[in-house]
Amino acid sequence: MERRTFLKQAALGTAAVAASVTVGAPAVIASTKKIRWKATSFWNPKVKIMFDGVKQFCQDVKEMSDGQLDIKMYGGGELVPPFGAFDAVSQGTMQMGTGSPYFWASNSTAFNWFGSLPFGMNAQSVNAWFYEGNGMNLMNELYSQFNLVPMVVGNSGVQMGGWYRKKINSVEDLKGLKMRIGSIAGKVLSELGVTTVMLPPAEIFPSLERGVVDAAEFVGPVHDILLGLYKVAPYYYTPGWHEFGPVLDVFCNKAAYDELPKHLQKILHIAAANTNIRTLAAFDAQSGVALDTLVKEHGVKVEVYPDDVIEKVKAVAKEVIEEEAKKDPFAMKVHEDYKAFQAKTAVWGQMSEKVYWNIMT
Amino acid sequence: MERRTFLKQAALGTAAVAASVTVGAPAVIASTKKIRWKATSFWNPKVKIMFDGVKQFCQDVKEMSDGQLDIKMYGGGELVPPFGAFDAVSQGTMQMGTGSPYFWASNSTAFNWFGSLPFGMNAQSVNAWFYEGNGMNLMNELYSQFNLVPMVVGNSGVQMGGWYRKKINSVEDLKGLKMRIGSIAGKVLSELGVTTVMLPPAEIFPSLERGVVDAAEFVGPVHDILLGLYKVAPYYYTPGWHEFGPVLDVFCNKAAYDELPKHLQKILHIAAANTNIRTLAAFDAQSGVALDTLVKEHGVKVEVYPDDVIEKVKAVAKEVIEEEAKKDPFAMKVHEDYKAFQAKTAVWGQMSEKVYWNIMT
Repeated sequence: MERRTFLKQAALGTAAVAASVTVGAPAVIASTKKIRWKATSFWNPKVKIMFDGVKQFCQDVKEMSDGQLDIKMYGGGELVPPFGAFDAVSQGTMQMGTGSPYFWASNSTAFNWFGSLPFGMNAQSVNAWFYEGNGMNLMNELYSQFNLVPMVVGNSGVQMGGWYRKKINSVEDLKGLKMRIGSIAGKVLSELGVTTVMLPPAEIFPSLERGVVDAAEFVGPVHDILLGLYKVAPYYYTPGWHEFGPVLDVFCNKAAYDELPKHLQKILHIAAANTNIRTLAAFDAQSGVALDTLVKEHGVKVEVYPDDVIEKVKAVAKEVIEEEAKKDPFAMKVHEDYKAFQAKTAVWGQMSEKVYWNIMT
Repeated sequence: MERRTFLKQAALGTAAVAASVTVGAPAVIASTKKIRWKATSFWNPKVKIMFDGVKQFCQDVKEMSDGQLDIKMYGGGELVPPFGAFDAVSQGTMQMGTGSPYFWASNSTAFNWFGSLPFGMNAQSVNAWFYEGNGMNLMNELYSQFNLVPMVVGNSGVQMGGWYRKKINSVEDLKGLKMRIGSIAGKVLSELGVTTVMLPPAEIFPSLERGVVDAAEFVGPVHDILLGLYKVAPYYYTPGWHEFGPVLDVFCNKAAYDELPKHLQKILHIAAANTNIRTLAAFDAQSGVALDTLVKEHGVKVEVYPDDVIEKVKAVAKEVIEEEAKKDPFAMKVHEDYKAFQAKTAVWGQMSEKVYWNIMT
């Protein structure tokens, strides 16, 4: 409640600059009329790959539409607080927002399935679910309840598991650990005796340094290196079992979207898919370099979680996710579809991508 | 020479219908003028994912441009023979062509690096090379020598290794084998005593049945199942070490491209990236289902090449590729860049995607 009140005030405070330019416009804007939109991101410019991606997305849309659709993207906190993007666009204060679906899970746990799930699909598989399975239709169904039209605009690929001050040799080592990790993944680790907390990025370093937490997950090499976590927690664990293929979203206020001429709607969808593939490309091009720097220049020890730890966490995650899905009939519907699709892609993945990586590395 | 003569005649024969609509147009077409292009594909409608992909690409371009750029896509053989697409567009008979870069390797061996290379990059890594590395710039440099502007329009992901009438238990079993496989991969297997031949798709089944060949590679489960190869060669080997991430291309005649208003050029590039991610999604969504059908309904035995066979083929491939690169200074330039990028993505891939697949399957 307090958060919502704050967001409403924030929205009112920026109403003068953020008022929709489409108020009073006809049901569909004439095909050549210039349109200006305001967009607000969860990300700020420091989270480079994510923010650069959505900025470029706006630039692409402008160029493809020959200047007809001009979207100005604001960073999280500039006009609207990061977590306020969803409500601001839902209420029409802004025409567009971006972030990751699971940031909006306070509205419905179903958002988790479109963002990231422990032991969920990787980027390639989840893209197949969105574009060729039922993923996009289900995502539309969920967001439309909040007056939004969603698009998938990026994926970070497999992330890292987190930074630890001590090695994890067994499931026993998790007991009593204090870790910065949230969402459903936090619930999973709680079941295994971990005390989980959420901290804003700026507090991760001092908390690890002072021993307020013993471990912390953030993103992956490209972004983690900037926080300097390697100075206070030398063990860098892989994989990010909680984030095998986190999805980034962009969403339009439905009324604003409906007013667009059809060709501009199409431009938005195609531009989003382009940003989706390029965001993953950016992670793939930069992560190896950053990881190399962490290992060779900063002496970071990259560790793979022991098999029995992964097996145990995976088993608990399965139960926690089933429980989570039971909270909401729509979440259960998405869960069943997601699970079936992941199983289908696994049949092929184990004969293709898995064999590739095992031969080539 | 004979092939070129034939292609020129074919091109002349279709000149009446295929003449560029932009002849006599000003250097840049007015921003709102309607433009019609003709495109010719290597693929015909039977090669569903590929042909459907480029058809949809044309539809996307038309919708995004509000009908301004209307590209009609012809299947291979309709107006121009499949392998004639490159010359037809290079010479301006058609404004656009599609296929896969390595189909054009008779013009320069450098095309192989942009299409597929034995033990080359998978889809995710090669996309990073194109979008974030030097891949796209190098591709532009090569195609521009032929009066073409290229775009990456798809990737099939890891393909299968091929159909065999007998099991392959060791490198010795390759000696004396007759196999349908071409390009650089064919040269690699020749070094190991395989007699390699290229056959058009329609001849693969009868050749396997009559024992003209003992083995044959085509694409992967989705397309192979249509040829019925499982009836005459029960062993289906993975992986397609020769095609870990084959790239599909679309290319414009440079003069026709240069005449387009900037926003239509942009639309083409973004639409191509959209088709790229969706083509891979289609393979990922359909391959597991097709493989399941092959195994459960047709009794196909899926086999993984023995480790020592893969190691030997990989070692020979490395030598053959180095020799191939030495044939052409530009190919060597591309080769060095490709190799360095693949090594970089491997650093990250072994900590991310590899771990994902090994945990999840």
